[in-house]
Amino acid sequence: MHIDHIGIAVKDLQQAIDTYKKILNRPCLKTETVESEKVETAFFQTGESKVELLGPTDSSSVIQKFIDKKGEGIHHVAFEVEDIKQEIKRLAGEGFTILNEQPKPGADNKLVAFLHPKDNHGVLVELCQTRSANEG
Amino acid sequence: MHIDHIGIAVKDLQQAIDTYKKILNRPCLKTETVESEKVETAFFQTGESKVELLGPTDSSSVIQKFIDKKGEGIHHVAFEVEDIKQEIKRLAGEGFTILNEQPKPGADNKLVAFLHPKDNHGVLVELCQTRSANEG
Repeated sequence: MHIDHIGIAVKDLQQAIDTYKKILNRPCLKTETVESEKVETAFFQTGESKVELLGPTDSSSVIQKFIDKKGEGIHHVAFEVEDIKQEIKRLAGEGFTILNEQPKPGADNKLVAFLHPKDNHGVLVELCQTRSANEG
Repeated sequence: MHIDHIGIAVKDLQQAIDTYKKILNRPCLKTETVESEKVETAFFQTGESKVELLGPTDSSSVIQKFIDKKGEGIHHVAFEVEDIKQEIKRLAGEGFTILNEQPKPGADNKLVAFLHPKDNHGVLVELCQTRSANEG
């Protein structure tokens, strides 16, 4: 288990890309829109982890709601796991509240599931697993 | 430049250690008190990065103030750099507000400097560099 990425909620994705290009001193790796989540994303590679910028595409996006409530900032941290279904089972058994009992497709060719921040000292934790080629 | 760690502000360090032992499914790497910052810290190794839990040792700690204002949660992200003085100079030149013009000693044998969140879409960014053996 390692940090796959941190997700940062931003109002204006293009402006944020310009800012993080300067901070990280490297180009943006890729951008991707996740229609189901109403977000557009931009990734920067930093060692084995990535910085993911998340901009809302719609006022009903969870990212817009987060920004309305808390302002821009770090939205979640994601840990890559080898077997997400097994990890969900393990953590549910430990008493954590899993927001997605069935992992769902996320950005960057991943299956993802979230743990409720209330159990994690205020941190929205994402588990993610890279999807294999033979998966749906 | 890679993610050295994410810092999570918590009310009760021991309780948070117990929680993150379960989430990350591994023991705590080490704990350390940083008197100058009035924080006690606990680190977990996750790949090349670490998860740092930060608990206040005093009501005047910046971590206590953060929790009072925003609640528990992710406090900062730290990027390891090769030459922190050079990075401070580069980023100041790009117009970023550096909170420590001179890097200061932090936890985990690092020299650290922070960038003001207002320039970084709400993210408190730490730059850190591992201190060499011949440094003060």
